[in-house]
Amino acid sequence: MSNQEAVGDFGLIGLAVMGQNLILNAADHGYTVVAFNRTVAKVDRFLNDEAKGKSIVGAHSIEEFVSKLKKPRRMMLLVMAGKPVDDFIETLLGAGVEKGDIIIDGGNSHFPDTNRRTKYLAEKGIRFVGSGVSGGEEGARYGPSIMPGGNEEAWPYIKDVLQDISAKSDGEACCQWVGDEGAGHYVKMVHNGIEYGDMQLICEAYDIMKRGLKLSDKEIGDVFSQWNKGVLDSFLIDITKDILYFNDDDGTALVEKIMDSAGQKGTGKWTAINALDMGQPVTLIGEAVFARCLSSLKAERTRASKTLTGPKIPEFKGDKKEFVDNLEQALYASKIISYTQGFILMQNAAKDYGWKLQKPEIALMWRGGCIIRSVFLKEITRAYRKDPDLENLLFDEFFHKAIDNAQPGWRETVSIAAKWGIPTPAFSTALAFYDGLRTEDLPANLLQAQRDYFGAHTFRIKPKFASEKYPEGKDIHVNWTGRGGNISASTYTA
Amino acid sequence: MSNQEAVGDFGLIGLAVMGQNLILNAADHGYTVVAFNRTVAKVDRFLNDEAKGKSIVGAHSIEEFVSKLKKPRRMMLLVMAGKPVDDFIETLLGAGVEKGDIIIDGGNSHFPDTNRRTKYLAEKGIRFVGSGVSGGEEGARYGPSIMPGGNEEAWPYIKDVLQDISAKSDGEACCQWVGDEGAGHYVKMVHNGIEYGDMQLICEAYDIMKRGLKLSDKEIGDVFSQWNKGVLDSFLIDITKDILYFNDDDGTALVEKIMDSAGQKGTGKWTAINALDMGQPVTLIGEAVFARCLSSLKAERTRASKTLTGPKIPEFKGDKKEFVDNLEQALYASKIISYTQGFILMQNAAKDYGWKLQKPEIALMWRGGCIIRSVFLKEITRAYRKDPDLENLLFDEFFHKAIDNAQPGWRETVSIAAKWGIPTPAFSTALAFYDGLRTEDLPANLLQAQRDYFGAHTFRIKPKFASEKYPEGKDIHVNWTGRGGNISASTYTA
Repeated sequence: MSNQEAVGDFGLIGLAVMGQNLILNAADHGYTVVAFNRTVAKVDRFLNDEAKGKSIVGAHSIEEFVSKLKKPRRMMLLVMAGKPVDDFIETLLGAGVEKGDIIIDGGNSHFPDTNRRTKYLAEKGIRFVGSGVSGGEEGARYGPSIMPGGNEEAWPYIKDVLQDISAKSDGEACCQWVGDEGAGHYVKMVHNGIEYGDMQLICEAYDIMKRGLKLSDKEIGDVFSQWNKGVLDSFLIDITKDILYFNDDDGTALVEKIMDSAGQKGTGKWTAINALDMGQPVTLIGEAVFARCLSSLKAERTRASKTLTGPKIPEFKGDKKEFVDNLEQALYASKIISYTQGFILMQNAAKDYGWKLQKPEIALMWRGGCIIRSVFLKEITRAYRKDPDLENLLFDEFFHKAIDNAQPGWRETVSIAAKWGIPTPAFSTALAFYDGLRTEDLPANLLQAQRDYFGAHTFRIKPKFASEKYPEGKDIHVNWTGRGGNISASTYTA
Repeated sequence: MSNQEAVGDFGLIGLAVMGQNLILNAADHGYTVVAFNRTVAKVDRFLNDEAKGKSIVGAHSIEEFVSKLKKPRRMMLLVMAGKPVDDFIETLLGAGVEKGDIIIDGGNSHFPDTNRRTKYLAEKGIRFVGSGVSGGEEGARYGPSIMPGGNEEAWPYIKDVLQDISAKSDGEACCQWVGDEGAGHYVKMVHNGIEYGDMQLICEAYDIMKRGLKLSDKEIGDVFSQWNKGVLDSFLIDITKDILYFNDDDGTALVEKIMDSAGQKGTGKWTAINALDMGQPVTLIGEAVFARCLSSLKAERTRASKTLTGPKIPEFKGDKKEFVDNLEQALYASKIISYTQGFILMQNAAKDYGWKLQKPEIALMWRGGCIIRSVFLKEITRAYRKDPDLENLLFDEFFHKAIDNAQPGWRETVSIAAKWGIPTPAFSTALAFYDGLRTEDLPANLLQAQRDYFGAHTFRIKPKFASEKYPEGKDIHVNWTGRGGNISASTYTA
């Protein structure tokens, strides 16, 4: 164990759930992996347990870790995002890392940090890669989705190992080079935002079946099981079925005993904030994040539930099969909207940040291994392969038809949930987005008039109404009341 | 004009629409105001025009501006937020400003900048105040709402002038000391976020009347005129009526010719981002900001309108009066939700940032002068005066009853809009929030199970189901599949 010979093909720092599983995965693919953890006892425990008999060697110091790796060294960090990543980078720099070596940050770092680190390490001749890794425990063990970006010089050296350990979809590796600087972590961030959205949509469907139709957990599990054979076929629907079937010792579903208070600080929040910063209407992820915020106000909700009134949900007397089919369409249509929004965000990010992002490759990477993997992503890959410049996923014929077909059930579901008093923030916002997008003339004309009225913020005229008095393309201020001045606002934004 | 005698009671820098009107306002109240603008020609233009014959003197250099003010100098900046504020502060420091002098930033600065500037200037003995000012052109001229915070030592010296020029509501000045550091700008930021929400709600009501009921602009104006006599009585409803009545030379409403593409970068966005950062579900402002984003994608919407399908809005055969009454209730209830969310955000900000914020005073300041002024805010002031620690506005009896009464119409409106295909993102999200808040058991239990299933993120048990196997208050991980390990995620957050 104290052999300082460079035997390692790949090094990994951080032996929590993702790290351990990725090491086992890489070892299975014939790589000799060097494992290190700040709490060194964890290294020995791992070596004597899961890692026993595999091509895994431990390191008891960071110097030993570095010295045991073949050059150029390929080292992956799977530590907490933020300061620990910077700290380990500095530690590695002081422990013998050399020019040409490669450091991969496989955690959930925020993409601006990855931008910074890529530049900082490039100046020292170290190739830095920020890579999203998704798939949870199982994915890490048997093939995750891996989204690397950063210093592209590193790619030829890490392509083999990352693609070998990644998931495959129809024979293609769910790991492709994403783009410059923080592009890999950016795409992973949007992936996680979409994951937040998908989970919220499933929760809303479950809630409607539980409280609206009064179905049992077993019956709801059967519905998800059925859905998993159709257009919604995906990892998250699949595990939802498992969860609903999973009983506690008393024979009732464990899920009903779990606290309904969800954590929300992280990548979903970053996605929503980035969308706001970029001025892109990524409403579904926004609502999914806020839904987690509201869920976490458990004590306040409990008090409110005793005070605030609502409609009594009537006994359902209609056709349950038809209702559940409508619900499936609501979930499907909302999901199409969420991915449409996510890709709009990414294509604007690429433009703003000057990254080349390959949309077909992104969809491909998400097809397997990761939490949002689904049959559906095959269609997105197909759509972007057919037209890499596709402006909007809804303009692809398949999705256009899918949403056209889903509409009646979707509208019915949103409508009935409003009457029953079952919250559907994600279903509803998806529908509002769809209806807004297909509306040539939104009521924002009134809003612009209001802004000009109270703040002299000016407006523009619709080209077909342009005149000498109101010329096209000019910022126009009208004295709406006859009282105000003619000064338009140049420095004040209300 | 070149008289260097210190005659000025109050100095103002920045002669755009807000600055000019505030100067005229202060002069009307007997103050001698010194006016300065970077483009000096603007000073002379102003002195020879609107300022003529009033107690207003001009300065042609920053040194002249400083020298003409009585000590301790009271100087207000009304310049573009961001770097210009920092630049003017530095310029003032180099132009004779002395210890004890007061600099007020009356622009829309982001509160973290105000935090920083308050500290920076306190170290130099200069008292810095960041003050929100709302009311637009008319407000600035005849009495705005003023929300000052920062270095409290300044308050005794500026209280007279700020309260004199501010709006009054039932004899009380709509200007009170808000709190430490950036608290004044923070409260103004939330005010603007709420303003975004109010405007979006009005737009949705207008859109439903226009496209759903096929009412003319005049008829819609009549509805707003009617609403302005009831619970919705407010500045924004009032100006909406004016706008709908305002015709172009051809006798048709000008508003229909205005481009439906709204700007959104600014304080509304900051509010939504702050809400996400604080983990507070301020969904209505979020949707209002995103609605502006969507409105600005005019070209994409125009293309989408030719491709994407939707329901044909049927000819309305029901009772229009009843429908409009329902719509009024939808707007009213949504507005109650928006203010509830805004105050939840502010009370959490106060806690997080260590500020003392007086909720009754905030509601008071918003009662008059500002863009969101309304009869409704009297009830909020009353509610918080009765119980300053009121946890949630909906727990006040008045609002509780109001929303109870509004519910049927609100649900009907959201429901029918979904079927008609008219987007109501703000009405819908308000309803989803209300229904979520009053739900003791949200479906986030399933979400927590999913997170534990795929990422070993652990969950907690509902206390009433706690057992030896699943103890209360502990982070529990279950091996849902029998395949995964027993490692729970400590460093990885999906």
